[in-house]
Amino acid sequence: MNCCAQVGAEAGGSAPFLTDHTTLIDSVETFIFDCDGVIWKGDSLIDGVPETLDMLRSMEEIFASSFAAAAYLKSMKFPTDKKVYIIGEAGIQLELKQAGINYIGGPEDGDKRIDLTPGQLMEHDHDVGAVVVGFDRYLNYYKLQYATLCIRENPGCMFIATNCDAVIHLTDAQEWAGGGSMVGAIKGSTKKEPLVVGKPSTFMMDCLASEFNIKTSQICMVGDRLDTDILFGQNGGCATLLVLSGVTTLETLQSSENKIQPDFYTNKISDLLAAKKVTTNA
Amino acid sequence: MNCCAQVGAEAGGSAPFLTDHTTLIDSVETFIFDCDGVIWKGDSLIDGVPETLDMLRSMEEIFASSFAAAAYLKSMKFPTDKKVYIIGEAGIQLELKQAGINYIGGPEDGDKRIDLTPGQLMEHDHDVGAVVVGFDRYLNYYKLQYATLCIRENPGCMFIATNCDAVIHLTDAQEWAGGGSMVGAIKGSTKKEPLVVGKPSTFMMDCLASEFNIKTSQICMVGDRLDTDILFGQNGGCATLLVLSGVTTLETLQSSENKIQPDFYTNKISDLLAAKKVTTNA
Repeated sequence: MNCCAQVGAEAGGSAPFLTDHTTLIDSVETFIFDCDGVIWKGDSLIDGVPETLDMLRSMEEIFASSFAAAAYLKSMKFPTDKKVYIIGEAGIQLELKQAGINYIGGPEDGDKRIDLTPGQLMEHDHDVGAVVVGFDRYLNYYKLQYATLCIRENPGCMFIATNCDAVIHLTDAQEWAGGGSMVGAIKGSTKKEPLVVGKPSTFMMDCLASEFNIKTSQICMVGDRLDTDILFGQNGGCATLLVLSGVTTLETLQSSENKIQPDFYTNKISDLLAAKKVTTNA
Repeated sequence: MNCCAQVGAEAGGSAPFLTDHTTLIDSVETFIFDCDGVIWKGDSLIDGVPETLDMLRSMEEIFASSFAAAAYLKSMKFPTDKKVYIIGEAGIQLELKQAGINYIGGPEDGDKRIDLTPGQLMEHDHDVGAVVVGFDRYLNYYKLQYATLCIRENPGCMFIATNCDAVIHLTDAQEWAGGGSMVGAIKGSTKKEPLVVGKPSTFMMDCLASEFNIKTSQICMVGDRLDTDILFGQNGGCATLLVLSGVTTLETLQSSENKIQPDFYTNKISDLLAAKKVTTNA
């Protein structure tokens, strides 16, 4: 049983509504947030998110679950003379930059096309030691071939996937092909399996626990999906908080068919702002 | 033992060099050709190919192994009021057109981009009854999302792959990410397995045998690779002819480590022109 489960959790039955925000925050050293359904929904930021993240950032470490690639590369001491080739968007660039890891590709290669001429050879950088693949709406054949060459021809080059999600909620209106599509493309051309550092792998929790010298039970995973986010947190030995601002309804959570119970649930992460009021009033 | 194996094949040992071209051609009703390494190599047409194909076409049915998708759809009586969505290049369009099957996508969607606006919804054609995926150097996110929507949302929509090759010899200079990459992308966003109608599946042979009311042993598979083309032919119950114009050398063919023996081998398909001379002289 982790620390958070001791804060007001009922024995058996479904997860309790979070009431004691301050005790939860005090018992946690690091929050990991899923983004889709927690920070934003479709293309809209969820109500109260900026203030909540500001408040938590002043008290704890906070991470997006999508930042797992940088966390992993940092923890395995990715050599400073090596580079990452990115299939992905600005978020992966940002996380690698913040971790001090060299990278190429990503948005820079979004407009490149291959118009083949006889005998054409694509040169590639032999210092690429890892290809990181995440969701990329500007995927093209140039990127596929570049990543394929690095993985097939650079000795020891790693193939890292930030997630293998089939679909993503890019807009409220429908589901869109997700990171699993980009990862699948590179699996198909290399016949290699990626190291999946994001959900459902628990690399990230282990990396954070090691980096901050804390227990995984002092990490709280916050997400909107029972079978991915909450299970991911539980598999990593973390406390778990379900928010109802995404795909899971209270009815689903409390259904007798649901076997995955978080330590707590709340409506949206800005409910945590209540902790600030208590702290301020105290 | 198929018909061709009786034309001069030695018992045991390695495959014989093809000498009796006329008897081979007489015993075959239909040739299936692999293209890469047989018709062209990298970006160059192999010597004597046009004349050879002209000669064979005047005597037999000939097919490219890449034409399996149309053959399959035709054989399963794909409804005329349904359409195919193509991820692929002009070849797939051509084969569907020749088979009288309606299609959309392919090269027409090569320049489309998704620049998301809030609430954006991609409409898709609910009459798409099959997505056919092959090699496509103009793959983009528009195509990925379109294909994903059809497979996920159109009841009964088939997911057909022409091949799952990791790499393809687009130019002589290097290997390029192949059809397996495009197929992998759609597997990743749909979490479905495709029906692979091309190599190594033997759908094509069965379709052709049924369509022309012949035995599969009257089909000759011509290819340059032992572990794909020749094995593909043998698994389909066909006669097999290895050409040395592609990746397989005579040394590899005759090596004691090679367990896959075609019925015959020859240097290049234009060697079959010798049959014409015999026929003409006869």
